[in-house]
Amino acid sequence: MALQRRLSSLLGSRFPYSASAVVGPRTFSASAEESSSSEQQQQQRVTTTLQSNGIAHVQLNRPNKLNALDMAMFEAIAETAERLASDKSVRAVILSGQGRGFSAGLDVKSVANPKNNNPLASIRTLLSKRHDNSVSNLAQDVGYLWRSVPAPVIAAIHGVCFGGGLQIALGADMRFCTPDAKLSIMEAKWGLIPDMSASVTLRELLPIDVAKELTFTGRILSGEQAAQYNLVTRCVDDPLQEAEQVALEIVEKSPDAVACAKKLYHKNWVHQSEADALHYEMELQKTLLGSWNQLAASVDNFGVSVPYMSRKNDDGKK
Amino acid sequence: MALQRRLSSLLGSRFPYSASAVVGPRTFSASAEESSSSEQQQQQRVTTTLQSNGIAHVQLNRPNKLNALDMAMFEAIAETAERLASDKSVRAVILSGQGRGFSAGLDVKSVANPKNNNPLASIRTLLSKRHDNSVSNLAQDVGYLWRSVPAPVIAAIHGVCFGGGLQIALGADMRFCTPDAKLSIMEAKWGLIPDMSASVTLRELLPIDVAKELTFTGRILSGEQAAQYNLVTRCVDDPLQEAEQVALEIVEKSPDAVACAKKLYHKNWVHQSEADALHYEMELQKTLLGSWNQLAASVDNFGVSVPYMSRKNDDGKK
Amino acid sequence: MALQRRLSSLLGSRFPYSASAVVGPRTFSASAEESSSSEQQQQQRVTTTLQSNGIAHVQLNRPNKLNALDMAMFEAIAETAERLASDKSVRAVILSGQGRGFSAGLDVKSVANPKNNNPLASIRTLLSKRHDNSVSNLAQDVGYLWRSVPAPVIAAIHGVCFGGGLQIALGADMRFCTPDAKLSIMEAKWGLIPDMSASVTLRELLPIDVAKELTFTGRILSGEQAAQYNLVTRCVDDPLQEAEQVALEIVEKSPDAVACAKKLYHKNWVHQSEADALHYEMELQKTLLGSWNQLAASVDNFGVSVPYMSRKNDDGKK
Repeated sequence: MALQRRLSSLLGSRFPYSASAVVGPRTFSASAEESSSSEQQQQQRVTTTLQSNGIAHVQLNRPNKLNALDMAMFEAIAETAERLASDKSVRAVILSGQGRGFSAGLDVKSVANPKNNNPLASIRTLLSKRHDNSVSNLAQDVGYLWRSVPAPVIAAIHGVCFGGGLQIALGADMRFCTPDAKLSIMEAKWGLIPDMSASVTLRELLPIDVAKELTFTGRILSGEQAAQYNLVTRCVDDPLQEAEQVALEIVEKSPDAVACAKKLYHKNWVHQSEADALHYEMELQKTLLGSWNQLAASVDNFGVSVPYMSRKNDDGKK
Repeated sequence: MALQRRLSSLLGSRFPYSASAVVGPRTFSASAEESSSSEQQQQQRVTTTLQSNGIAHVQLNRPNKLNALDMAMFEAIAETAERLASDKSVRAVILSGQGRGFSAGLDVKSVANPKNNNPLASIRTLLSKRHDNSVSNLAQDVGYLWRSVPAPVIAAIHGVCFGGGLQIALGADMRFCTPDAKLSIMEAKWGLIPDMSASVTLRELLPIDVAKELTFTGRILSGEQAAQYNLVTRCVDDPLQEAEQVALEIVEKSPDAVACAKKLYHKNWVHQSEADALHYEMELQKTLLGSWNQLAASVDNFGVSVPYMSRKNDDGKK
Repeated sequence: MALQRRLSSLLGSRFPYSASAVVGPRTFSASAEESSSSEQQQQQRVTTTLQSNGIAHVQLNRPNKLNALDMAMFEAIAETAERLASDKSVRAVILSGQGRGFSAGLDVKSVANPKNNNPLASIRTLLSKRHDNSVSNLAQDVGYLWRSVPAPVIAAIHGVCFGGGLQIALGADMRFCTPDAKLSIMEAKWGLIPDMSASVTLRELLPIDVAKELTFTGRILSGEQAAQYNLVTRCVDDPLQEAEQVALEIVEKSPDAVACAKKLYHKNWVHQSEADALHYEMELQKTLLGSWNQLAASVDNFGVSVPYMSRKNDDGKK
């Protein structure tokens, strides 16, 4: 609630142009809801507001279900990440949940209802649906696609952040959460493994013994414990304010340098030989050297202020 | 001592069926001891007690030598891990040391006795002996084979845990130890490197600078320091009780989900491209979806209790 | 200052033979300075003093510019690392900065002077200049080549350690720093990414979310914060004394065992399959077993003191 007030205050007072930049999630025909939600509500599964300073606020917006993931939510999140990846005016993304928590994870009742004739049909769709040439399926997209957004993505977590909800947050570049948030790698509760890209994101963050214990047991952690284990970057009283502050630091920097750093680390952190890693470092730097934004950043240190141009065209792929 | 009393108490009072499920280590002809130990004693290098709840207690059992590793001990540990890997009723393994410590490491006097004609013959045997198609030799088996056990393996460490003893513990999925335990990557003391799979297990746990400092110096750490460096998962007063508690959490979950999570992380943590990692995540999940144990776990959340079946047949290989 | 006094005291009183072992950096024709520094000054960009116990003290020596990196400094550091890599009498290296800090990073005024006709020419030289078959360019050499020195390299950091200066320190095997040191992955300030081997060294040390935040923002950390993030190994009041103490522990060990451990971890930590990692462990151990230095280390445990021989010939490559 405090988070919501904080967001409204941020959006309302400081970024008057935000309304014009709303990115609407597409509707997805396969996601017909059993509840009587109107079409308008479904279109609001995720709301995106782009501030004039390039910071996009993305909110999971199904508060009456604790932002649980039904098919429409999966589609809306993937769609949002894709749009933000191709929008060169986006300089940082803040991802949070509307209402009492970040996300309770998979909406089992909607996606795997045992009353249905084929209760696992939707889950099988999640595992098989993918774009041409994509390495990730729709289930993985909601976590993995944040990595393909050139701008840094910061998750601001409060309340529950369970299972699929946590895997969405793990796809962000940083995670801030409240001390009393509740987080869990919860899939074991359903006899499953985390399969929404956690095995790609966790390996860059945690020692494997910690990841195993949390996954085997499905234990629920407080925000403070999650920070001790580095499941979140840090624990703060107001994650949304912290995210905004870091985002403001980031938008002062060259958007090309920031995007290249993100690509560099994703590519080199795991599974890259030293020779290839060093070569990629050099190749990326060459694209930056002498470019408008690199010069703009440089002369700023000598008291000459030149505005940045939009990030270079970048398909967000590595 | 306290650990031993605790184990006896656990085994005696709570798991009356354990005696019938003892897995006996095989004898190994090449491991003739120079001391006058009886055949019976040699057969007890490692004792395994499988509780009715699926938790197996494995104890290194050469207390008069601080569980130092002679050839018989190497063979017994490898044999035990292999049997547990193929026993589908095993749901969790707790690994500890009988007597005053976990293990003092290599029994140099027995394995590399300078009085022998060929003092390094046994060590060369350790480095060359391997099963067909195995990626690990016998020296590595005692650490590495715990990874091929589908059920989680938890090491409960007290007293000394040096060199080869530590590398055994590093092969477990989690490590709990007493505050006053003593741990060391001790191989430098003998002019050697750790070669019992430490370079596979440490990389998933520690920053490289910490691993280097401990390996270069052979420094002895307290349990508390070892926990700060994440050489152990955590430091607790009663590691055996902590291990039992975590094991009890684990056996409440689907054994298939737990085994798949272990395989998933081992395969994906290092040296796997993002595309391959995502694909493996999906493939493993498909084997779980709709299976008996997955459904049993699911309906449990709706108050319907169905017993798990044994873990699916699994060769323990990745 | 205190660091400098400490070093002088160490070198003066305890290691009287040091003067005879000075390694002189070569001069580099392309590095003509715009300032009026004498040839003699340029030759002192890096000073190296090899103690009789095998510990080499390497100092960045351009104190009037906070050890900023001009072309002569790049060349001198690379040259020093190469010489130390091939000097079998070197058993440990301590790397520090003369004057008020470790290094302020790139000397932008010298290397990328906007008044020059072609201000980026020198930087392009740094990115393209490399030895035959080398995987690293000259910019990367100053960090990366410390990895090819068979003896452990310890960085002792005080004052500023920014950008390129930090990447030099990240190439060391361990880093100790003062609580009030100032460290930053500062490249974003210039619209650039860290390209002096940071993406090879950081991945072995930090969680990726921490690396991203520090890189995106270019934030300046205190030594204490840097230790919390493991950007340095630890924070101590007197890093030079700490480095000397650890180096003394190391030179008591077999130089072959230490060099093999360094090679083992560098090769296996990232991007090596489990099978290849296990095989490499075994191959390296076989080179140690039964060698003079291995036996010397072993008998020392039985009270028989035999001096080590020089490290086996080793080209420093992996």
